[in-house]
Amino acid sequence: MSDDQDKQAKSNIKVTRRCLLTGGVGVATGTAATLVAGLGAEGAAAGPLDRPWATELGDPVGTNPYGHPSSFEKTVIRRPTPTEYSPKGYVPPMNESSWTGTPLQDLRGIITPNGLFYERSHGGYADMDPANHKVVIHGLVDRNLELSMEDLRRFPTVTTFRFLECSGNSDLIWGKATYGGQETSPYLTAQDIHGLLSCAEWTGVRLSDLLREAGADTVRAKWLIVEGADSGALARSLPMARALDDCILAFAQNGEMLRPEQGYPVRLLVPGCEGNLNIKWVQRIEVTDQPLFATFETGLYTDLQKSGKAWISSLVMEAKSIITFPSGGQSLPEKGFYQVRGIAWSGRGRISHVDVSLDGGRNWTQAQLTEPVMSKCLTEFTMPWRWDGSETLIMSRATDETGYTQPFVQQIVEARGKFSEYHNNGIQTWRVESNGEVYNAQG
Amino acid sequence: MSDDQDKQAKSNIKVTRRCLLTGGVGVATGTAATLVAGLGAEGAAAGPLDRPWATELGDPVGTNPYGHPSSFEKTVIRRPTPTEYSPKGYVPPMNESSWTGTPLQDLRGIITPNGLFYERSHGGYADMDPANHKVVIHGLVDRNLELSMEDLRRFPTVTTFRFLECSGNSDLIWGKATYGGQETSPYLTAQDIHGLLSCAEWTGVRLSDLLREAGADTVRAKWLIVEGADSGALARSLPMARALDDCILAFAQNGEMLRPEQGYPVRLLVPGCEGNLNIKWVQRIEVTDQPLFATFETGLYTDLQKSGKAWISSLVMEAKSIITFPSGGQSLPEKGFYQVRGIAWSGRGRISHVDVSLDGGRNWTQAQLTEPVMSKCLTEFTMPWRWDGSETLIMSRATDETGYTQPFVQQIVEARGKFSEYHNNGIQTWRVESNGEVYNAQG
Repeated sequence: MSDDQDKQAKSNIKVTRRCLLTGGVGVATGTAATLVAGLGAEGAAAGPLDRPWATELGDPVGTNPYGHPSSFEKTVIRRPTPTEYSPKGYVPPMNESSWTGTPLQDLRGIITPNGLFYERSHGGYADMDPANHKVVIHGLVDRNLELSMEDLRRFPTVTTFRFLECSGNSDLIWGKATYGGQETSPYLTAQDIHGLLSCAEWTGVRLSDLLREAGADTVRAKWLIVEGADSGALARSLPMARALDDCILAFAQNGEMLRPEQGYPVRLLVPGCEGNLNIKWVQRIEVTDQPLFATFETGLYTDLQKSGKAWISSLVMEAKSIITFPSGGQSLPEKGFYQVRGIAWSGRGRISHVDVSLDGGRNWTQAQLTEPVMSKCLTEFTMPWRWDGSETLIMSRATDETGYTQPFVQQIVEARGKFSEYHNNGIQTWRVESNGEVYNAQG
Repeated sequence: MSDDQDKQAKSNIKVTRRCLLTGGVGVATGTAATLVAGLGAEGAAAGPLDRPWATELGDPVGTNPYGHPSSFEKTVIRRPTPTEYSPKGYVPPMNESSWTGTPLQDLRGIITPNGLFYERSHGGYADMDPANHKVVIHGLVDRNLELSMEDLRRFPTVTTFRFLECSGNSDLIWGKATYGGQETSPYLTAQDIHGLLSCAEWTGVRLSDLLREAGADTVRAKWLIVEGADSGALARSLPMARALDDCILAFAQNGEMLRPEQGYPVRLLVPGCEGNLNIKWVQRIEVTDQPLFATFETGLYTDLQKSGKAWISSLVMEAKSIITFPSGGQSLPEKGFYQVRGIAWSGRGRISHVDVSLDGGRNWTQAQLTEPVMSKCLTEFTMPWRWDGSETLIMSRATDETGYTQPFVQQIVEARGKFSEYHNNGIQTWRVESNGEVYNAQG
């Protein structure tokens, strides 16, 4: 070490106001000599740090030809909703109607790794052999198509970043009444409440190209019926106008081929629309002049209104946001500087801005959006915050490029009553208690 | 089925010129009745398709709390360079200097899944306990910092999409002389030649924020020495101007925490610069007035010139592109329509355009770039192509926003001689033979 460096090291006591993490945040200061020694191999033997990796060769590169996360991250996994919040305690078998949620509170940025992408299925999932899979297009067409996966991949492909959200996401904070009137728990995490939301880069073939190839009668035919090959035989009606817009048959996700639980080898992607419409394992597309009125668009996935009538085909996921830090189950070690962060999205296009309130919704401050801000895609937002140690109600509110702003949950309940269930895009409130613990405060 | 649909189905013989995949491409046409029956449960028993997933419940959702790819994708993995192309047949143990490459030819879009992100290490890799890991900043600073991972994550974070490329990438096509004068094999794939290239969304703390927190003397100190905690003890000198620009200490990749082989719990990210500079497992940053002149910046990772002298600290990865379809090892089943696709990148900023040649470099056509086009990030390009079945030499050429255009390999060899090794950003040529097989044509 040079004399200059030594001198610098010895004058390190002064902690100026330029320090971001104010005094005593665990940012130790010491002489360079002690600090560096503390990290050396000899230091390790004497000190609290056990670091064999500094002195021994590591695992061979290539040990995992397809890698996996660190063993220290094993709690970062997909999880089903805690059983105590299921309706009347009934939990269906996981290969019937079931789901697992993404650990949003543990993630950063906008990409959901495929291994953590939320799952939702009505008949479990199969790992289907792509060599035995075909997509048939028939009905009001000039010619039927029967496409192998190889045929399908021959078409021009497009790649886009899009979120996917189950319309039943966030139903746990639906005015305390969705699940048999139980009170909503303060212990719920972002994953528990909002985990049926993920985001990826998708690659596939434009549905409009396939319809053109089949010579579909896009004047008479107002609907497509899209059917999955799974035992759930999920089928939904897709309006023709939307099919001709930005829908794709996707076969790749985040660079690689789809995962089995995401509909390998091919799924429908209807950007901005409820997850259930994004049929997995697509095997058949019928071009028709009327919708199917399937169970999944009449008995389920409809929006009950206060009048007792229900909306059907309310497909778009409206603008929404949640704060992922600080969020339920996390805790702040002490008062001082923190970066509030979260994600926002809209099924109608780009997010234009996100406001954050630190006082239960009275005052709002505009957060910073991380570039790129893409249409029908998650957008990350951040805001610097110096926590004074007092109890704080924290919430975010997204506005999209159409000018629509995310409402309070109470406004949704007032409009639709307490027994509606889907499309809850209300504002999530978290309560930071004075001891730093964070709880769900949304009833 | 309605009468109308039936009538449509029966008139399906005519295959018009609107067909993208011209006659006989495996796109079967038949009556809707036969097609749909062929996909029904009864049809399955009689037909060639074995699809138990249509009649039996699938695996339970949640079977894999952290998921993995389909069993039908098991060949899509990271691979080391085939041993026959190693210098004089010597292959070091995989926990010494070693690497595996990303299967670029199997991927789409710009995101590399973390499980397929290329590996490069000089001492294997360890799965380090983040609770025992600290980052020390010392030297020409007002105060030394010793940051736990918890401390580090308290700082404001930024998220950006960036490529990472080993400076030794593509050395197999360095004028046939890199590895003991062997001829470069026609059987090499994109992965074999160019696989030390990947791209991800990264989240971390600005290095400039940490230097400000430490009160670094950014006038006197021209360099940082950044050191890894692994047994390879990799250390490199980072110019201060670059450190204050867009460098981050990254702890998350594609949403989740870094993988062990990528430097978990924290690595340096120097956007646009050679992979070796992006120190993994960062434990120490020394602020200093002179570079380290470490082995990895003098003995290795230097650019030998024809004169016999070598460039050092040539850090930036210049504009480059490769076609990933059609590429070595793939084959075209027949003549007709294909979409040429590939990836382009530049360490100096955004890609402005990519040209594709289908005649060995005489004529060039501008390809379409997929949005978003981001700085120092992979950019996907595509171009429609109707292959007439004749032998074709296909290549791509990237130009970045500075106006710089990717050179031919021969131009690089002329400038630097045959014994240089790093920073080969030359144009890759693939040869499509008349039987549809694709080979490496770059000597």
